[in-house]
Amino acid sequence: MVEGAVERVLIIGTGLIGASTGLALRAAGFTGRIDGWDQSSLELRAAREMGAVDGVAGNDWGALELARQADVIVLAVPVLAIKDWMQRLAPVVSAGQLVTDVGSTKLEITEFAATLYGGEGQAVFLPGHPMAGKESGGAMLAEAGLFNGAMWLFTPATQEPTALEAQWRSWIGFIGARMLDMDAKRHDELCAWVSHLPQMLSTALSALLEEEFGDAPEIAAIGGRALRETTRLGASPYSMWRDVALTNTKPIAETLLALEQRLMHVRENLRTPGLREEFEQANRFRARR
Amino acid sequence: MVEGAVERVLIIGTGLIGASTGLALRAAGFTGRIDGWDQSSLELRAAREMGAVDGVAGNDWGALELARQADVIVLAVPVLAIKDWMQRLAPVVSAGQLVTDVGSTKLEITEFAATLYGGEGQAVFLPGHPMAGKESGGAMLAEAGLFNGAMWLFTPATQEPTALEAQWRSWIGFIGARMLDMDAKRHDELCAWVSHLPQMLSTALSALLEEEFGDAPEIAAIGGRALRETTRLGASPYSMWRDVALTNTKPIAETLLALEQRLMHVRENLRTPGLREEFEQANRFRARR
Repeated sequence: MVEGAVERVLIIGTGLIGASTGLALRAAGFTGRIDGWDQSSLELRAAREMGAVDGVAGNDWGALELARQADVIVLAVPVLAIKDWMQRLAPVVSAGQLVTDVGSTKLEITEFAATLYGGEGQAVFLPGHPMAGKESGGAMLAEAGLFNGAMWLFTPATQEPTALEAQWRSWIGFIGARMLDMDAKRHDELCAWVSHLPQMLSTALSALLEEEFGDAPEIAAIGGRALRETTRLGASPYSMWRDVALTNTKPIAETLLALEQRLMHVRENLRTPGLREEFEQANRFRARR
Repeated sequence: MVEGAVERVLIIGTGLIGASTGLALRAAGFTGRIDGWDQSSLELRAAREMGAVDGVAGNDWGALELARQADVIVLAVPVLAIKDWMQRLAPVVSAGQLVTDVGSTKLEITEFAATLYGGEGQAVFLPGHPMAGKESGGAMLAEAGLFNGAMWLFTPATQEPTALEAQWRSWIGFIGARMLDMDAKRHDELCAWVSHLPQMLSTALSALLEEEFGDAPEIAAIGGRALRETTRLGASPYSMWRDVALTNTKPIAETLLALEQRLMHVRENLRTPGLREEFEQANRFRARR
C-alpha cells in the first residue's frame, strides 16, 4: 500500500458538487470505494443510481461510522452544515485521515478547522472550494466533467501537506481542475466580487422585474440575451446562498454598496461625458479577459 | 411589377445590423438590388466584400442620390445619426417610398417622423427595432442568420400600412424575425428594463471591477461563468450607447434608481428572512422564462 494512498472516500452531501466529485473520480480512474450520505433520500438514491457512490449510509450515525473507515471525507453541503459536520466528525476521525470541504466561503471554516483539526493525533482539514456549479443544484445535474478546466481553490491553514493531502490534490488534478492556494480572508473578499456580488445582483434584478412585470407577456417577447444572462442566476436557490450571506456578510455588503454607488454615478451621468469614461473603463476590464 | 414590390433597397450604415440585414435578405431569396453607404470606408468595403450590398455610394451625396431610386431605405446607424438622416432624406424621397430604421429607442424617432413623413406626397416612415445584436459591432461580425428567431419591433404612428410597408414586413418575416407592433413610449420604457438597464449594469460592474482589480491575475483565475455573463456587455461601445442614453434618459434613470434601491434592500437583509423573500421572488421570475 502506497503511503497516503486514497483508497476510501466518503462524500457527505451528494448534490450537484458531491455527486459530480464521485463521478469525476471514477472517470479519472479511481478504483477505491466511494460511500455517500445525504439527508435527502432522493439525492442519495440518484447519486447511487448514476454511479457517483458505491454504498450509502442509512442515517447520520451510519455516515459517522463510514467516516471512521474513510481516508478522505468530502463535505459537500452548505457552509453552516459543513461546520456542523466538522464538529461531529472531529471526535470520530484521527491522524492519517483527511477531511476536506467544498464550501463557498472559507474564512469561518478555516478558522473553525484550526480549533478541531491538524493537531497531534487529529485528522487534517483541507478547506477547499471548486469554482464550478450551475444555477440549479441536485445530483440529477451532476456530471463527471463538471470540474474539467475549473479552478479548485484551497485555503490551508498549514504550509506542509501530509502525504494523504498531496494524494488528494493529485486526484483533484486528475479530474481536470486547476488548483490555487490562497489566504482564506482574501478568498472570501475576492469571491464576494466575482461570485457573490453577481449572484445578489442577478437575484435583485430578477426580483425587481418580477415585481414590475409579473407574467406580462411583453417581457418574454422582447427580452433577449442581455436579459437572459443578467437574470440567469436569479434561479439560484436561497437554501445555498443563505449560508454564503451569513458567513461572508461584510465583504458582500461592501461590494453591494460599491455597486449601488457606481449605478448612481452612471444614472447621474447619462447625459454627460462621464458616461463615456464609464464605458471605456468597462471596455478595458473586458479587453483583459 | 407587383404593386408595392421591394426591388431596390438602400442600407445606410453597413455595420453589424445593416450588413446582416443585407445578408439576410439575400439568404431569404431577395433578388433586387441592395446598395449601401457607411461613413467608415472599412465597414462599407467589408459589407460589399461579404455580399451584404451590391453597390456603394461614394459619399453622403451619393447616398442621397441612391435614396431617390430606392423603394426602401434602411437607416442602420446610431439613434441621433438616424434623426440626421431622416432630416436629410425627407426632401429627397416621396410618396411610394419607405424609410425605416433599426434604432434602439423609438419615441424621439417616431415623434420626429410624424413631422417629416407620412403626409400628402411624402414617403412613409416605419420606425423599427430588431432585438438582435452582439456586444461588439461592425460588418465583420454580420451574419445572415442574425435575426432568425429574433423579435423585430415596430412602433408605427399610423394604423394602415401601405402596400410597400406590407411588402417590407413580409421580408422581415422571410429573414426569420418575429414582429410585434407597440406604442413608441411603451417600447422605450420596456427596453429600458430589458435592454438598457442590463447594459448599464454590466458597464457599471465591469468599470468597478477594473478600478478595483485592474490586471490582478487572481480575478482572471477565479472568475467563472457568473462573472463572465454579468460583465459580457461591458465590452459594448460607448459610441452606440451614448445615443440610447441621450434619447431615453428618464426611463433608464428610473430603472437604475429602482435597482439601486433593490440592491440596498438586499444589502440590508443579508442576515434576515428578507433575503429568502428576495430569492423566492427572483426564482418566480426565472421560472416563467
